[in-house]
Amino acid sequence: MKDFIRLDDTDNVVTVTRALEAGVEIEGARTASLVPRGHKVAVRAIARGEPVRKYAQIIGYAACDIAPGEHVHTHNLEFRNVAAEYDFATDLRPVAMVPEERRDTFMGFRRAGGRVGTRNYIAILTSVNCSATAARMIASAFGPEELARYPNVDGVVAFVHGTGCGMAGDGDGFEALQRVMWGYARHPNHAGVLMVGLGCEMNQIDWLLEAYGLERGPLFQTMNIQDVAGLRRTVEMGVEKVRAMLPLANEARRQPCPASELTVALQCGGSDAWSGITANPALGHACDLLVAQGGTGVLAETPEIYGAEHLLTRRAVDRAVGEKLVSLIRWWEDYTRRNNGSMDNNPSPGNKKGGLTTILEKSLGAAAKGGTTPLIGVYKYGEPVTARGFVFMDSPGYDPVSVTGQIASGCNLVVFTTGRGSAFGSKPAPCIKVATNTEMYQRMTEDMDINAGAMLTEGVSLEEKGREIYEMILRVASGERSKSEAQGLGDYEFVPWQIGATM
Amino acid sequence: MKDFIRLDDTDNVVTVTRALEAGVEIEGARTASLVPRGHKVAVRAIARGEPVRKYAQIIGYAACDIAPGEHVHTHNLEFRNVAAEYDFATDLRPVAMVPEERRDTFMGFRRAGGRVGTRNYIAILTSVNCSATAARMIASAFGPEELARYPNVDGVVAFVHGTGCGMAGDGDGFEALQRVMWGYARHPNHAGVLMVGLGCEMNQIDWLLEAYGLERGPLFQTMNIQDVAGLRRTVEMGVEKVRAMLPLANEARRQPCPASELTVALQCGGSDAWSGITANPALGHACDLLVAQGGTGVLAETPEIYGAEHLLTRRAVDRAVGEKLVSLIRWWEDYTRRNNGSMDNNPSPGNKKGGLTTILEKSLGAAAKGGTTPLIGVYKYGEPVTARGFVFMDSPGYDPVSVTGQIASGCNLVVFTTGRGSAFGSKPAPCIKVATNTEMYQRMTEDMDINAGAMLTEGVSLEEKGREIYEMILRVASGERSKSEAQGLGDYEFVPWQIGATM
Ligand SMILES: [Ca+2]
Ligand SMILES: [Ca+2]
Ligand SMILES: [Ca+2]
Ligand SMILES: [Ca+2]
Ligand SMILES: [Ca+2]
Repeated sequence: MKDFIRLDDTDNVVTVTRALEAGVEIEGARTASLVPRGHKVAVRAIARGEPVRKYAQIIGYAACDIAPGEHVHTHNLEFRNVAAEYDFATDLRPVAMVPEERRDTFMGFRRAGGRVGTRNYIAILTSVNCSATAARMIASAFGPEELARYPNVDGVVAFVHGTGCGMAGDGDGFEALQRVMWGYARHPNHAGVLMVGLGCEMNQIDWLLEAYGLERGPLFQTMNIQDVAGLRRTVEMGVEKVRAMLPLANEARRQPCPASELTVALQCGGSDAWSGITANPALGHACDLLVAQGGTGVLAETPEIYGAEHLLTRRAVDRAVGEKLVSLIRWWEDYTRRNNGSMDNNPSPGNKKGGLTTILEKSLGAAAKGGTTPLIGVYKYGEPVTARGFVFMDSPGYDPVSVTGQIASGCNLVVFTTGRGSAFGSKPAPCIKVATNTEMYQRMTEDMDINAGAMLTEGVSLEEKGREIYEMILRVASGERSKSEAQGLGDYEFVPWQIGATM
Repeated sequence: MKDFIRLDDTDNVVTVTRALEAGVEIEGARTASLVPRGHKVAVRAIARGEPVRKYAQIIGYAACDIAPGEHVHTHNLEFRNVAAEYDFATDLRPVAMVPEERRDTFMGFRRAGGRVGTRNYIAILTSVNCSATAARMIASAFGPEELARYPNVDGVVAFVHGTGCGMAGDGDGFEALQRVMWGYARHPNHAGVLMVGLGCEMNQIDWLLEAYGLERGPLFQTMNIQDVAGLRRTVEMGVEKVRAMLPLANEARRQPCPASELTVALQCGGSDAWSGITANPALGHACDLLVAQGGTGVLAETPEIYGAEHLLTRRAVDRAVGEKLVSLIRWWEDYTRRNNGSMDNNPSPGNKKGGLTTILEKSLGAAAKGGTTPLIGVYKYGEPVTARGFVFMDSPGYDPVSVTGQIASGCNLVVFTTGRGSAFGSKPAPCIKVATNTEMYQRMTEDMDINAGAMLTEGVSLEEKGREIYEMILRVASGERSKSEAQGLGDYEFVPWQIGATM
């Protein structure tokens, strides 16, 4: 294992990968004292008041003169609150786009209308919890034997949830739920969709169809329990409808599609002190590779980038995109205040013990999943992502809620970094899980697809690990099953964001 | 079918059960004009300014002199906002308690500690969505063949949900979730409990055990995916733990228990114009019968009794109980305002068309489920109900969220009235469904247990229908399966109330 990790050539601190005694050599300097695992060491002289750089970013300022080899933490690094003034489009690094004729491909399902799926599911969507059991019963009627007759169909999945009524019929919460419903209804990983409602719920299926211009057809059907007159008949009729969809869905075939058709959800959950050092930057590099192919990476989790949003506004392709991000931040400040909370994302005592000194450093670790290319779009929760490149979608950090929004926005694949170890999986978009540390990877080897901890324990470079993730994205998009898929995860992780009062 | 229905002897209006032409005789008067179905007719002369009474309550005041036979609605009935002053304990009707030696019994499972269950389940509880799939996989490992060896066990049920992390670690939302977890962990319908978490979630299992003094044992086990090191092993180990519980749980036997051991959730969902006329008052009478036996009825759905709370404060056994209800109302006004909504529960155009004139009349229809006995306790969402008699528990009106709280508070049976037709069912407490109208009852006969519409179509009295409900409560409590149970509902209707921001 290397003793330390450097995150950018311009950094004047590095992070040590194990506790170092005094006197250990690091880039020509020698540690002046014991440095705990995950903490920072100065590798150049930093005069009092000079910026301390990590991730090529200013994470704070030297509170006193710091010599090479000195431990850098709360005792000598001070955070200065950035003025609430944002710069826009001042840090646009040009993307070296791969010429179209040399672009990578994957084997995807090209749908009518041109969008491309990475899986071929039949979805049963519910407008309200009151149709949850009906939807589950319909889906579970399709056993392995029957499904084996349709080898091109990945399964029949019920997406059930706890909301859809007892809510306001307009406003942020209602609109977010409608976007999720719509996004799943038209997701390219769905060959067919059956929407099941109760009938008297606030979240009316008919309103959705009308608002979004969805039209019923052989592969898009709807039904309400109250119209059908009861649970048993609803299930019977639903099973018939899905049964009629299966042969049609089975006609879909994978064909070569450019990597530009990939929209990848960038996600982290159960983070640890290594998330921002290994897995997140590696995923960021994979995102850069994808963007150079014309593909799309969707960063989310607004509360977790709080404090680093001014860096994203500088990466914003123009002022309008940057201001959209700022308005999300303002919305969140109001949302949390209204709910007697706050956006305080300062490093916790546990974070500090792990080596994170400032809020900016913490948020940079989360934002590192988004790589280095320009931010070309900012979207609401579950809003269709139409731009191609690196974009941001508003969401909570909470994994199932955030990923549900990313999938609704059109993500056809998810990459999920985790330090503590998460058993997350998603449908209809498959999920690749990246471990931040080797110890957890080895402990949870049946759940983790990729070990970014090897960047510490085996000296694998950021670029190598990023490419490994990128290549796995192409393989899983082409049909290779990720660990979470093989385990059968993804049926219970659909959780639309509930905003507002439950009445 | 009778032409009209009288809800109380002291009422000066009755409700017509079908559209009546002018000239139809009603209690000696003759209708002065066409009266639409569900609307009110004066049966005595009501002078301008005099109160109009329905449900024995003042629902408004005559805006002009009203002659017997006149249609009473928005044109001649005015609502006067009650001063925001509450009377306490001024309307306490003495309960004719059935002497102990003559009390009814049912066949229940008496648990160590004395509480009584109506079912005998093994529960798999989850602290967070991140363990949802693990819990479902553990539960689904127990097929009908294996369970047939344990005839006294009603099943292995997974209770999964969308929250547990991405939330504040204190405050209303966190406390409500903890009460739900605790309430299900100690529910008398559970012979054994396995709690499954991820490990890094906000809603820590260990904190819950510590806060509530729960102790691990053969029939109460916990596990975290991160400790066990992965999904597959968690499922394997969980299956082993449950398998070890089954023979122990199977030792439970039903024995005669007094009806006073019943705590019945009073619930309505998918209401119609008849809910407040037929099913709700009939359920209210069943609640009165239960209370006379020393049993407990739990009214909930705070937004739906809004506007009638001053009647409940008058029924409050003392000022403290009444003031607790008032403080809930104040909390709700703040909760909805903070969420850009309001508690406005005025009759909608649809309500008015159906014959509901004032907010009070509407809320009285919902509150009618609570019968007429004194209100002896007011509880927070999911808080253990310790009093015996008629009580109120705070909750939204939304069915799965409200019933989840009622079950967490200790309800061992649910009675659910519905007009539009709901396919609701619950576990571990079985749910009896009461139709408000005969047309829906006949259409959804496989879902409805009782037809309160017979009060209109067959002239069955309130008392008769109330007794029918009460007797079915005793039978279902003793093991008879309700319609929703026979259909297998209750696995997907566990929805803890989410209060506060999702972060
Ligand atoms: Ca995260
Ligand atoms: Ca997350
Ligand atoms: Ca059994
Ligand atoms: Ca209701
Ligand atoms: Ca309800």
